[in-house]
Amino acid sequence: MAKNVEPVYYGDYLQLEQLLGAQQPHSPRYGDEAHEETLFIIVHQVYELWFKQVLHELRSIYGLFAQPQLADESLALVGHRLRRVLTIQELMNQQVQVIETMTPQEFLAFRDYLVPASGFQSIQFKELEILLGLNRQRRIAFDQQSFYNRLNDHDRAYLENLEAQPSLFDRVDDWLARMPFLRFQDFSFWSLYQQAVNDMLDADSETVRNNATLTDAEQQQELKGIAETRENFAALFDQQRYQQLRDSGAVQLSQPAMLSALFISLYREEPVFHLPFQVITSLAEVDEKLTIWRYKHAMMVQRMLGSKIGTGGSSGHDYLRKTTESNRVFKDFFSMATYLLPKSAMPVLPQQVKRALGFYFSHQTQ
Amino acid sequence: MAKNVEPVYYGDYLQLEQLLGAQQPHSPRYGDEAHEETLFIIVHQVYELWFKQVLHELRSIYGLFAQPQLADESLALVGHRLRRVLTIQELMNQQVQVIETMTPQEFLAFRDYLVPASGFQSIQFKELEILLGLNRQRRIAFDQQSFYNRLNDHDRAYLENLEAQPSLFDRVDDWLARMPFLRFQDFSFWSLYQQAVNDMLDADSETVRNNATLTDAEQQQELKGIAETRENFAALFDQQRYQQLRDSGAVQLSQPAMLSALFISLYREEPVFHLPFQVITSLAEVDEKLTIWRYKHAMMVQRMLGSKIGTGGSSGHDYLRKTTESNRVFKDFFSMATYLLPKSAMPVLPQQVKRALGFYFSHQTQ
Amino acid sequence: MAKNVEPVYYGDYLQLEQLLGAQQPHSPRYGDEAHEETLFIIVHQVYELWFKQVLHELRSIYGLFAQPQLADESLALVGHRLRRVLTIQELMNQQVQVIETMTPQEFLAFRDYLVPASGFQSIQFKELEILLGLNRQRRIAFDQQSFYNRLNDHDRAYLENLEAQPSLFDRVDDWLARMPFLRFQDFSFWSLYQQAVNDMLDADSETVRNNATLTDAEQQQELKGIAETRENFAALFDQQRYQQLRDSGAVQLSQPAMLSALFISLYREEPVFHLPFQVITSLAEVDEKLTIWRYKHAMMVQRMLGSKIGTGGSSGHDYLRKTTESNRVFKDFFSMATYLLPKSAMPVLPQQVKRALGFYFSHQTQ
Amino acid sequence: MAKNVEPVYYGDYLQLEQLLGAQQPHSPRYGDEAHEETLFIIVHQVYELWFKQVLHELRSIYGLFAQPQLADESLALVGHRLRRVLTIQELMNQQVQVIETMTPQEFLAFRDYLVPASGFQSIQFKELEILLGLNRQRRIAFDQQSFYNRLNDHDRAYLENLEAQPSLFDRVDDWLARMPFLRFQDFSFWSLYQQAVNDMLDADSETVRNNATLTDAEQQQELKGIAETRENFAALFDQQRYQQLRDSGAVQLSQPAMLSALFISLYREEPVFHLPFQVITSLAEVDEKLTIWRYKHAMMVQRMLGSKIGTGGSSGHDYLRKTTESNRVFKDFFSMATYLLPKSAMPVLPQQVKRALGFYFSHQTQ
Repeated sequence: MAKNVEPVYYGDYLQLEQLLGAQQPHSPRYGDEAHEETLFIIVHQVYELWFKQVLHELRSIYGLFAQPQLADESLALVGHRLRRVLTIQELMNQQVQVIETMTPQEFLAFRDYLVPASGFQSIQFKELEILLGLNRQRRIAFDQQSFYNRLNDHDRAYLENLEAQPSLFDRVDDWLARMPFLRFQDFSFWSLYQQAVNDMLDADSETVRNNATLTDAEQQQELKGIAETRENFAALFDQQRYQQLRDSGAVQLSQPAMLSALFISLYREEPVFHLPFQVITSLAEVDEKLTIWRYKHAMMVQRMLGSKIGTGGSSGHDYLRKTTESNRVFKDFFSMATYLLPKSAMPVLPQQVKRALGFYFSHQTQ
Repeated sequence: MAKNVEPVYYGDYLQLEQLLGAQQPHSPRYGDEAHEETLFIIVHQVYELWFKQVLHELRSIYGLFAQPQLADESLALVGHRLRRVLTIQELMNQQVQVIETMTPQEFLAFRDYLVPASGFQSIQFKELEILLGLNRQRRIAFDQQSFYNRLNDHDRAYLENLEAQPSLFDRVDDWLARMPFLRFQDFSFWSLYQQAVNDMLDADSETVRNNATLTDAEQQQELKGIAETRENFAALFDQQRYQQLRDSGAVQLSQPAMLSALFISLYREEPVFHLPFQVITSLAEVDEKLTIWRYKHAMMVQRMLGSKIGTGGSSGHDYLRKTTESNRVFKDFFSMATYLLPKSAMPVLPQQVKRALGFYFSHQTQ
Repeated sequence: MAKNVEPVYYGDYLQLEQLLGAQQPHSPRYGDEAHEETLFIIVHQVYELWFKQVLHELRSIYGLFAQPQLADESLALVGHRLRRVLTIQELMNQQVQVIETMTPQEFLAFRDYLVPASGFQSIQFKELEILLGLNRQRRIAFDQQSFYNRLNDHDRAYLENLEAQPSLFDRVDDWLARMPFLRFQDFSFWSLYQQAVNDMLDADSETVRNNATLTDAEQQQELKGIAETRENFAALFDQQRYQQLRDSGAVQLSQPAMLSALFISLYREEPVFHLPFQVITSLAEVDEKLTIWRYKHAMMVQRMLGSKIGTGGSSGHDYLRKTTESNRVFKDFFSMATYLLPKSAMPVLPQQVKRALGFYFSHQTQ
Repeated sequence: MAKNVEPVYYGDYLQLEQLLGAQQPHSPRYGDEAHEETLFIIVHQVYELWFKQVLHELRSIYGLFAQPQLADESLALVGHRLRRVLTIQELMNQQVQVIETMTPQEFLAFRDYLVPASGFQSIQFKELEILLGLNRQRRIAFDQQSFYNRLNDHDRAYLENLEAQPSLFDRVDDWLARMPFLRFQDFSFWSLYQQAVNDMLDADSETVRNNATLTDAEQQQELKGIAETRENFAALFDQQRYQQLRDSGAVQLSQPAMLSALFISLYREEPVFHLPFQVITSLAEVDEKLTIWRYKHAMMVQRMLGSKIGTGGSSGHDYLRKTTESNRVFKDFFSMATYLLPKSAMPVLPQQVKRALGFYFSHQTQ
């Protein structure tokens, strides 16, 4: 091996001439070079390189979910690559500290030369959001209007085409929805389960009523919350009411996908569920780290500009603030805990069910 | 030296018997011990130890600000100890990851045995908030009601007494307000400055109007924002209008303190302002890290309980979410960038002003 | 549920009076209180609390490995708790930054009052090392002498008794050694494998010889290294030579355990090996994070004292430096990569072997 | 302002076509694309971008130190930019976790196609080392031979020319050496100081002798260490003996620079020394973070290859391990603590000395 390989030189392999020649500050065109413009350029270029890597991973994961059957080996690969994405996101969140070493005045020394460029014009970041499943409907009003009008025609066309495809969210929903282990003949799992959840909610209500340290207002608020939880929970088993929840945006997964995700979360300790649980957890964490990135980014912009406008002509900070919460794709995985029970209260899985699950998965792995 | 010192043994010095004997899980009283209850106890105890350390530092800082004159040596000490507080906060934020290694079901195994205990009952954390300057007026409605009724009489009395004292925020405001360098005879600094800011805002408005990539809606929104900034800025120099801003909660510093903070931020590169600038920046970061801690804490609670109630009988998650934004004490330092100018646009400080400042500070250091 | 539970108050549950009463600086006994002594005490107490938690987890893991059969559920639990240990270690490594906010002179203000107390007297840390498997034979010379003579009789007796027990390392070695999948009738796995590794090493030798960028000295050194690797690899399959390697300290696992670990690492992507691979990797990472902790600790001591002596009367820094490398318990897992092959070069596992493995593990889970 | 600025588009400004077109994996030339080769390329390209940024900062710092006088404003700028370098280094150290998400077998899938490329061929990294002051003399034997023979002629010439220039270390040494405050007429500072240090070392010796918990061997070792410290300390004030220390590599700063650094460290709390102390501390931390980077890098290589050879045809791991300690440039700042005294034991600076210092620095700032 390695015989007929032509010798490689580090700088050529990494194409450093091209890479390190791509930093061209604009300030020298209008006067003295602003020392920090190089930092500003390199920080954004590093983000774009990481975006490329994250897209490289997510596309491969997307491809695996597109298979009719997802064998354990493939599921392990999905988990492995999602962990890589999370590690990169962790680093991207850290990276905000680097740009924060630039003072507001150091930034103002070249801000005016970059108008109207804007981070909203990062095609890779938009592609990332679209690929995950953040479609127009999900985007907040302000963004729905302006998502596209900052882009040139080529970029706009590229993204609009992407939005026409099914997203990773859709693929994951299909995968969960087609899991077989929700059809158990002669095992009334879900009715047992509903009973157990209702018992838990009864106990919680009683706890609230007996809690002398709460004000009346608080008690009412808590009991109202428990009632809603009961409502939502019941809806999980009623197609029509579930559809209403989904239309209202309260939930995003399809009903069968939601029940599969819940089942997996409940029995995460079953060997057969390790991988599926790792995967849905990692997807929720991708969302979470994106949220933290948006938040840190918003804080950085406020520190840099206060309520001044940014180079894109908008006071990015408020907008970024708004998006931090609204742009979650896999929210349902994140709030799964609402319906979890203590082990002691959970229905025991009969052997034939375990076998069924075991068979389903081992069958896949052939 | 060290002659008449009685020998010390590690375990005695750290009182490990007492320290390591203070973990008493309740689950064994009601059945099997829940393996994770020890983790739950130790994580909270470590937080309380860090709270004690942070209070130790903040009280000493408070004492230094209480001096009639704050010499450079003392200001350096304030900066040094604030950096320590920030380092500890960084660690406390990291620590959320440790409790997140507990699964929802592992928590549910002992949650019911802790009712109605609640993190809201951490006296040290409330003391920390009060000492910084988070008074009842500032607290959000929900909390105003319930801040005290969870506490026993002794704790309630202790905190109510604290709230009657001036806070660190008050001390810092006094310190800034008494700075002399805002009274410059025959140097029309502030009028020159207002002119420069207005020019900047004019240019920004024009940038927005010329920006073809913005929708009309966005343009209107941005121009409105710039107008508000102009308003607020003008108010800085008009006692009455400033008072209105302050009453509305838009700003929190007194007018002279705000102008001092602004001046310091503008001329941060002047040697004489290094320490003052470090100090106000660090105070803003203490806020910022507290905000991140509240946010991570809220996320952790949601992951653990979803919309279930916590041991305190309240669904902590929503509340914690709400507090993350509202509870900032040194917000004004954080948004200072709104009024900063590029160096090129800034009035040059005349020598006699520099001398005046130099004298003021070196005078202090005698 | 939760009916007959007596109400709990936060401060009582966490025994805060006891916990927050355990910080008693000694400096006031000899003059003014040194402001930083509280920090010094609290930092060490927090470490002791984390040590207690880590021991809580490792003991439970030790117990699981002590079972005659380790079912998948148990193995998953081991992996889960090892990840918790790693998360705590990550935090302990971060924590060094907190003590580094104390200047050397701030430390010197009370150093002399703590003589001859020393971190070497932390019983929990020593118990941690012993439990993992760091026995006297493994400890470096300097420490072998002084490990015990700093302790009081009670502590010494406690640790000597611990050293008489089998360690976690021993338990893990047993678990790996008894894995059945090394006995494959009519599948000459290991001979195929040895052939593949030798081909790889031949290719590497050739690569070195053809590498014009290496000096002759470097080439000789590399070829020597490859020859040693070949030697060590051959020894894996020869009881006697392997025993020599082990006696020399080059390897620490028993031969069958080493082969199991290698097999698991090679086929980590096989679903049946996910958990075992996660576990051995996590054990190597526990070592790695301990190493980093010792290193950061050594750096901190040097920054604080230079080559001055510490409170224990020894210039801890050099010693700590020495231990960072020598005290690894699960080193063999860490260097496993030496014998790994590219997938393309690996023997394919015949179905009956996969079935055998599958059966072995699923059999365990009954 | 911003009037005559030509509109800027995000992708053009960052030259994304060029940047994102620079990842060309080699594996497709020889068979299937190895999924992880893109990660491998991007991780190294990001490092090169950060190296470029770090060089941008260090060159500007170098330029400031090259001035005949270093005004406070400039010193503040040096400190500010060194903190930026440290923040970037922190991120680079974190980044090792990203490449660690690649398994050994994933790397082996393309390792053989990169021969004989090697990280030793990173010109920017070598330039970074040379600029800091790591010259050939300092480099460890193995590297001395091979530092250049891996490079093409152009790169070799470029670096050899750099090595002919004075380094940042040399500039910093000059700056410290020319500080005036070591010549105090009629103030016998250094003799008072030597007395105080000797008293401290006497006390330490006694502490060791009285320490019953030490073995005889340990006592001898510690007393020997204290004697050496006494020797080295005395040498600080004896040109000839100091020169011997320097020739032996025990110290690296010139004698006057060493004394200035010591003086600054002793009186760091004097306002006039804040900036100088921040600067020498930051320089020591640059070293420290480089050391940690080399260590993490070495661990990563071992995890990836064990004792296999790397693409450069050498088993990088051992070598990298060796360099982690030997390649420190500003070591002397790091061990300054050896000679620090508790405040209580320090000579009081007479007013005329304070004035002299104050004058020297304020004079600079004119």
